[in-house]
Amino acid sequence: MVSDENFRKVKPYVPGEQPKNDDVIKLNTNENPYPPSPKVLEVLGNIGNSSFRKYPDPEVSDLVQALADYHNVKRENVFVGVGSDDVIAMCFMTFFNGGKPVLFPDISYAFYKVWADLLKVNYDEIPLDNDFKIIPDDYFKENGGIIFPNPNAPTGLVLGLDKVESIIASSPKTVVIVDEAYIDFGGESALSLIDKYDNLIVTRTYSKSRAMAGMRIGYCVGSAELIKVLNSVKFSYNSYTMSDIAIKTGIASLKDEDYFKQTVGRIVDTREKTKRELNRLGFTFLDSSSNFIFAKHKDIDGEQLFNALKKNKIFVRHFNSEKIKDYLRITIGTEDEMKSLIDFLKRYLGYKEV
Amino acid sequence: MVSDENFRKVKPYVPGEQPKNDDVIKLNTNENPYPPSPKVLEVLGNIGNSSFRKYPDPEVSDLVQALADYHNVKRENVFVGVGSDDVIAMCFMTFFNGGKPVLFPDISYAFYKVWADLLKVNYDEIPLDNDFKIIPDDYFKENGGIIFPNPNAPTGLVLGLDKVESIIASSPKTVVIVDEAYIDFGGESALSLIDKYDNLIVTRTYSKSRAMAGMRIGYCVGSAELIKVLNSVKFSYNSYTMSDIAIKTGIASLKDEDYFKQTVGRIVDTREKTKRELNRLGFTFLDSSSNFIFAKHKDIDGEQLFNALKKNKIFVRHFNSEKIKDYLRITIGTEDEMKSLIDFLKRYLGYKEV
Repeated sequence: MVSDENFRKVKPYVPGEQPKNDDVIKLNTNENPYPPSPKVLEVLGNIGNSSFRKYPDPEVSDLVQALADYHNVKRENVFVGVGSDDVIAMCFMTFFNGGKPVLFPDISYAFYKVWADLLKVNYDEIPLDNDFKIIPDDYFKENGGIIFPNPNAPTGLVLGLDKVESIIASSPKTVVIVDEAYIDFGGESALSLIDKYDNLIVTRTYSKSRAMAGMRIGYCVGSAELIKVLNSVKFSYNSYTMSDIAIKTGIASLKDEDYFKQTVGRIVDTREKTKRELNRLGFTFLDSSSNFIFAKHKDIDGEQLFNALKKNKIFVRHFNSEKIKDYLRITIGTEDEMKSLIDFLKRYLGYKEV
Repeated sequence: MVSDENFRKVKPYVPGEQPKNDDVIKLNTNENPYPPSPKVLEVLGNIGNSSFRKYPDPEVSDLVQALADYHNVKRENVFVGVGSDDVIAMCFMTFFNGGKPVLFPDISYAFYKVWADLLKVNYDEIPLDNDFKIIPDDYFKENGGIIFPNPNAPTGLVLGLDKVESIIASSPKTVVIVDEAYIDFGGESALSLIDKYDNLIVTRTYSKSRAMAGMRIGYCVGSAELIKVLNSVKFSYNSYTMSDIAIKTGIASLKDEDYFKQTVGRIVDTREKTKRELNRLGFTFLDSSSNFIFAKHKDIDGEQLFNALKKNKIFVRHFNSEKIKDYLRITIGTEDEMKSLIDFLKRYLGYKEV
């Protein structure tokens, strides 16, 4: 019988539920409620046999160049992968190989801890303050690397660029990754610091603001030196990660800036409106700069509310971790979806308060 | 300045060239010269916004079930990934974590060594015999796992199922991976042994026989116990590796068995015809059961021939490694493509022999 002696033992990340039915209001995985640019779907009409038959370009040159042009950097500064999860996993594998602990916030993207465990990376979870804020000074110490999302998840809080820069500047010898999955919804990007700091990696995803979670595209921008090393590791893992259709639709998305700004703007407007509504209903929440709101009700337990919503086919995210168990992470959907949420909450809370 | 002290140092795999121009005869990466089933392209016409906007099913249930049905196994026996490279990399990460060396042939898929180096896996390259054959007895020793392709690459030689079984049976406690990237072109699959050996993993790819290299789909079949552990590691790396379009086109490919058999049959016929032609031109080669021929000419140096072909826009693969530097690995293309190759060789060899 096979022995598990040589097996890697892990505790995997648990993603939000992807219900198979379309009759639910899905506010649990921070997806975009709007479709991607029509230009993206148009691409499918022009896909020929060779997009299937032949291997895709292993260098992903066209998408890398399009992203470089979009961000006004060089192609040597851009690396792409199968969602930002793939990009960040590759960064962990590439840059976090020292004995000193990698630093990240204790309340943050739960996958950081999972990657560290998987890859046997030593780490230190730095507590947020009592207002769920990142304290830059806490990162000014010896480390094997630093990673944090900005805006942070699941709090939605953004850190000012001066504070982000102070963290990058304080660890010039180790790699600092700023995970900007949600930056298009608020906050100032660290991309402007790429030329100034050769230890900086900024990661981005197509899954939120670009409405392309299903296509699996992520990327990062960094110094040519870091990107080169990252590519070496990528070519030691899988030469061809991006399908030809992902490359082509990824490029198309960048070519419709008006649509992009318009849909992101709509989500931000809905978010602010939802904040006002939630406030009226007795919720307190952090001042989100992302496409979700992290909120708790003054009277009702987080898990109870999560279950009540789910029973009514409204999916939100609830985390069991002690510090945040009172909260729900609610993705911003369409105006209609948020109205359904608020209407349900009014009924539910009214009933409870009778 | 950033220090490379914490960087992972690797020597990446170098994939075959993917020329951007369409005016070359591309016989260098073992792609299928025929398009995928028309049913696969039809899928693109029915792709809607939600294939983009929403995350794909992290369990990839529909494709896993379709593959299970296709191979007459349970869904618990199937794992999918971004090409078989992703699947095998995950297997290395999951199953090869002991101190004892993992065994694989010295002349084989060059990526095995790269993955082992990347993941710091101890390994032992077992020499093929003088006829480039795998000797099963050489694998009957203590090991941390075993992996070999069947048919082997780049030799194209297939090992009989009884010999494959002898290797699996000799190491019941460690995982044995049979990499069947080319099995549809010849040889007997080890899939029939899945129920008998709980230490067996059989990997497959859509990139060769299914003409879908550009879509990045690979999978493996193994005992429910092994697949479960593999999924844990996958969910510690990237929750969503398969795009929704990959899932849907992957299923479509399985539904056109006639087309599949017909195109594979054509490639096999062309291979046998090409063997006869090469023989007439003074080539010797191994008796390939795959979609390529590993051949050397009695007079002309491998590298010289590689360069002459390339200059004439015929791309084949040449490896610099000492034992095989006289050989070219020639992918089987269409009848027309192989005729162009043979015509060129006739001219070239005629010229040299004047």
